[in-house]
Amino acid sequence: MPGHKLVLIGVGHVGDAVLAHAMSSGLFSEIALIDANTTMAEGQALDQHQATALPGVGNVYVHVADYDACADADIIIYTAGPSIRPEDSALDARNLLATRNAAIVRQAMGEIVQRTRDAVIIMVSNPVDLLVHIASTEFDYPVEKIMGTGLLLDSARLCRLVADILDVDPDYVHAAMLGEHGATGFPYMSGISVAGVPYEQFPEVFGVSELLPREELMHRTNKAGMDVLEAKGWTSAGVAASAITLARSVMLNSKIVVPVSTLLRGEYGHDGDVSLSTPCIIGGRGVERRIEVPLDEWESARMAESVDALTALIASVSEK
Amino acid sequence: MPGHKLVLIGVGHVGDAVLAHAMSSGLFSEIALIDANTTMAEGQALDQHQATALPGVGNVYVHVADYDACADADIIIYTAGPSIRPEDSALDARNLLATRNAAIVRQAMGEIVQRTRDAVIIMVSNPVDLLVHIASTEFDYPVEKIMGTGLLLDSARLCRLVADILDVDPDYVHAAMLGEHGATGFPYMSGISVAGVPYEQFPEVFGVSELLPREELMHRTNKAGMDVLEAKGWTSAGVAASAITLARSVMLNSKIVVPVSTLLRGEYGHDGDVSLSTPCIIGGRGVERRIEVPLDEWESARMAESVDALTALIASVSEK
Amino acid sequence: MPGHKLVLIGVGHVGDAVLAHAMSSGLFSEIALIDANTTMAEGQALDQHQATALPGVGNVYVHVADYDACADADIIIYTAGPSIRPEDSALDARNLLATRNAAIVRQAMGEIVQRTRDAVIIMVSNPVDLLVHIASTEFDYPVEKIMGTGLLLDSARLCRLVADILDVDPDYVHAAMLGEHGATGFPYMSGISVAGVPYEQFPEVFGVSELLPREELMHRTNKAGMDVLEAKGWTSAGVAASAITLARSVMLNSKIVVPVSTLLRGEYGHDGDVSLSTPCIIGGRGVERRIEVPLDEWESARMAESVDALTALIASVSEK
Amino acid sequence: MPGHKLVLIGVGHVGDAVLAHAMSSGLFSEIALIDANTTMAEGQALDQHQATALPGVGNVYVHVADYDACADADIIIYTAGPSIRPEDSALDARNLLATRNAAIVRQAMGEIVQRTRDAVIIMVSNPVDLLVHIASTEFDYPVEKIMGTGLLLDSARLCRLVADILDVDPDYVHAAMLGEHGATGFPYMSGISVAGVPYEQFPEVFGVSELLPREELMHRTNKAGMDVLEAKGWTSAGVAASAITLARSVMLNSKIVVPVSTLLRGEYGHDGDVSLSTPCIIGGRGVERRIEVPLDEWESARMAESVDALTALIASVSEK
Repeated sequence: MPGHKLVLIGVGHVGDAVLAHAMSSGLFSEIALIDANTTMAEGQALDQHQATALPGVGNVYVHVADYDACADADIIIYTAGPSIRPEDSALDARNLLATRNAAIVRQAMGEIVQRTRDAVIIMVSNPVDLLVHIASTEFDYPVEKIMGTGLLLDSARLCRLVADILDVDPDYVHAAMLGEHGATGFPYMSGISVAGVPYEQFPEVFGVSELLPREELMHRTNKAGMDVLEAKGWTSAGVAASAITLARSVMLNSKIVVPVSTLLRGEYGHDGDVSLSTPCIIGGRGVERRIEVPLDEWESARMAESVDALTALIASVSEK
Repeated sequence: MPGHKLVLIGVGHVGDAVLAHAMSSGLFSEIALIDANTTMAEGQALDQHQATALPGVGNVYVHVADYDACADADIIIYTAGPSIRPEDSALDARNLLATRNAAIVRQAMGEIVQRTRDAVIIMVSNPVDLLVHIASTEFDYPVEKIMGTGLLLDSARLCRLVADILDVDPDYVHAAMLGEHGATGFPYMSGISVAGVPYEQFPEVFGVSELLPREELMHRTNKAGMDVLEAKGWTSAGVAASAITLARSVMLNSKIVVPVSTLLRGEYGHDGDVSLSTPCIIGGRGVERRIEVPLDEWESARMAESVDALTALIASVSEK
Repeated sequence: MPGHKLVLIGVGHVGDAVLAHAMSSGLFSEIALIDANTTMAEGQALDQHQATALPGVGNVYVHVADYDACADADIIIYTAGPSIRPEDSALDARNLLATRNAAIVRQAMGEIVQRTRDAVIIMVSNPVDLLVHIASTEFDYPVEKIMGTGLLLDSARLCRLVADILDVDPDYVHAAMLGEHGATGFPYMSGISVAGVPYEQFPEVFGVSELLPREELMHRTNKAGMDVLEAKGWTSAGVAASAITLARSVMLNSKIVVPVSTLLRGEYGHDGDVSLSTPCIIGGRGVERRIEVPLDEWESARMAESVDALTALIASVSEK
Repeated sequence: MPGHKLVLIGVGHVGDAVLAHAMSSGLFSEIALIDANTTMAEGQALDQHQATALPGVGNVYVHVADYDACADADIIIYTAGPSIRPEDSALDARNLLATRNAAIVRQAMGEIVQRTRDAVIIMVSNPVDLLVHIASTEFDYPVEKIMGTGLLLDSARLCRLVADILDVDPDYVHAAMLGEHGATGFPYMSGISVAGVPYEQFPEVFGVSELLPREELMHRTNKAGMDVLEAKGWTSAGVAASAITLARSVMLNSKIVVPVSTLLRGEYGHDGDVSLSTPCIIGGRGVERRIEVPLDEWESARMAESVDALTALIASVSEK
């Protein structure tokens, strides 16, 4: 059915969770699975296929496919390649991951671009900013149709952290992380609010005794994913919800406003040289607009660090 | 089933829409309908009962009842009494509505308080602030268990208005109306933001040519309901979604943060003498907390007007 | 967005309920409203537009339109024309309704067919079999793309009736009404089952004292709608759920199997001369298949009555 | 909140999928996780906790707990113990699994029964019929509050298999597996229908060339789970949907009619000596009713085999 096809590339632990969310989203009539491990992909498809007969699960056509399935895809979600493991926190390990996943995404994009330039591509694999950058700059694919879940998930973690302090529903905490999906991502401090009350007024209005300084918010949020990774072995719930949130806004042209990773086109003085997360409007065409929120001095310094970290990462996997 | 019973008082046009939302909410195993027009109530129950056999509609036990149904209710939604009609905009007509609905709610509360003090009561009928005030002050019912949809709906209208200017999903516009659900309700200006960007920076960040002044935001938002009323004859979609939003947060203890009408207990210098909308945290106990957001001079003046308008309205229907 | 546009023709009481279901279905990014009463349509659009800012309501673009909106519609739901009123049960009144609504649907189809032959048209207005027949035979529109809610709703009523006897969820009662959406529609007796147990074994297996004879099942089901009509003034919950059930199966190519009204093409010895409800598979192309279930003698006699009633009705509004 | 608490015992691969479904079900305000591997449980809780800040995910209080959490639980879902692995198909391996999981469930039930007799317990771990039997007979726990997902999942697989033959939505295939969740489970042949048409009439009505004989339906359905297991390493989608389907019907008193594993109380000549799957009505009290569907000769023989297999299994882990 036009407008209802997902191609999911990669069905490991993260792909498994994305698939489960996609199946129950009501967005798709067809989900095609691509994975180098075709046996695993067959198992995932069969597991979900059998579940379609249960109450409340739609009759989605879920099946294993090759890249030809991208030709009429509306959304492509990319979760392929090895994930960060708890033991990968060291710099060497991260660089190795970058090198491997850069190679894998280049191959995948090479396949995709031969079949379509219409699908919106949602990158989930890490380092997500790097993969977005490679896809956006090395292939003749419309850049507004490429985004990475990036700091959408970390922003959710920041909202949760603030919500825990105030004991409120995190959907009613408004906060965003900006920059790299990694150690240099930072909270957009002037944008944090609950009930219209900015962060610095929380002690007075909500009676909380003392506020976490911004460095602490930044640190705790950036390590939140690693906390899950170390305990569970992988993270999946948040990233799956993030990917489907973006897919929904594209499919239904909702124009949600969330931080996602995209190629900068003039924002913060960068044009095409780096990809990172800023608030974006996500609609039917993909990234409808990047919003350049004004930064204070501390935030500008953090943004510069994100740019530096990502510039180095991009250079490290350059093919030249 | 414990924790899953709704009593809906009033099944006219607004009650009809609330009922439809309640049926599809997945929150309730039983919905009891109370209406002076028992034939209409029977028709509503039967219409919904027949629909339960359709795909996606749960097997909710929906039936006509009397006030005894309140004894084990978890939520009571009150939509009884005549509604504002397009021709009621004149002051005389509004006062007549207040007088009639004050009498009807007094009767209903007299019945309810004999059966329960555990259910959370969500007032929808107008003038909603007056009905909340009567229920909260004239009966020995726990005040934290009484709230009115009040400015939750007007806040949504304000968000929609701002969303239309920026062409974004209104769920990502953060804004609240405060005060009376009526002509004196006003926008909480410092609380309006999108992507963490405050209202006054919209021209610079989003490139909108000129901003509506706050008086215009206030005026347009307050007449938005009347616009619907005049064209359609009644308003229902927004108010039904508002009531079920509150019910959900109570049932699932979600602690959403939204403007609802409650009896003030010290906020803005008022203690028990007036009921109006301020941001509140809504959870399993009902109103978990009222949030006294700081007001600027213009907002304080508007709040005073709301208090004055409501004080006069309360006095006009005083039984002494 | 391709694949996500609804045009709703008629926004009276039934259209109002269909619209509310459509808004919350998650199926549509755009809903265009067409009604001769443009003020009412504006009110409906505005009411729903304001509600999009509430939690859980998507940012659907809902607006008033003219027939040009059909050009890229995926689904057209037709609820226009006067409804049956309680006082219309007399034959004269029904014929008057038929005459009026035949004229109105002819005008609407004349407009639609100039703009599209791609949208699936779901007829809701009554007499629904007649309107399906006119649309299917008098215009050059693909017949597999035209269906009427017809006995989908009455089948739900039959399931509910049986479910009430056994005290089970009606979703687990399997039963269908066949024939005319009207006095001659009849239960497909051999198809009634719960837990794989056929109707005639209910006394033995479920311990129910005595079964309703098939004439009584037929009579009670066929008057169930009128029961609602007389008490409430209109029916809306079931018919709205029916229309959106069909729309969902088309949009997501689900291939649900339900009784809907279509032009017979050889089934039961009729080819193109009558439209009525039989079980059909509903998918992305509309009516994927009509299922000619085997009838016993009593059922064949009832089917003949349905054909006769509808043939007379069709003749009565023939333009020749 | 009364009526909204889940305790999930076991958060391995199956528990992970059950947890994800439970989080998005809208049924629960609190989910407590119990697992011998507390680090894994912490990771699961944290992963889901962070995801609550994403759009569409409710503010569920998800946390690690000990058995005291059962005291006010509404539902307990049990997925603990080692799972069947692809290499476990040999009889020895199955017996070893039975021995291990019998011991683990005895320990868990010992803990539960000290805290509550009110929660409905949904067994998921295998051999599920054995675990249901132990829980129902060795502890003073109300037997109507204990059920196993059992053949609910296999019935879904059977429906899917038939749906694939006819190319229809499996929700519209009505079919059940009866007996053991294992090699001897069998299709209830006279209960298979689509659109009210019984299985043996499919060739005539649907034009399918030839039907699978019942032995083949039985064989393919019973190996469907193993097919997933061998390809994916575990099964999760179907079993998670099954568990939450049951939980929803209990919480909302829906009275769905599905095959689940319970202690027989007179059905098929067995009273308290064996537990296996028959169609049951599931409501607020748990198993509201077991339905003894009439069996033909072949089905009776298969039922006897199921009873024999389970009697032997029960004896093998008897503590005497």
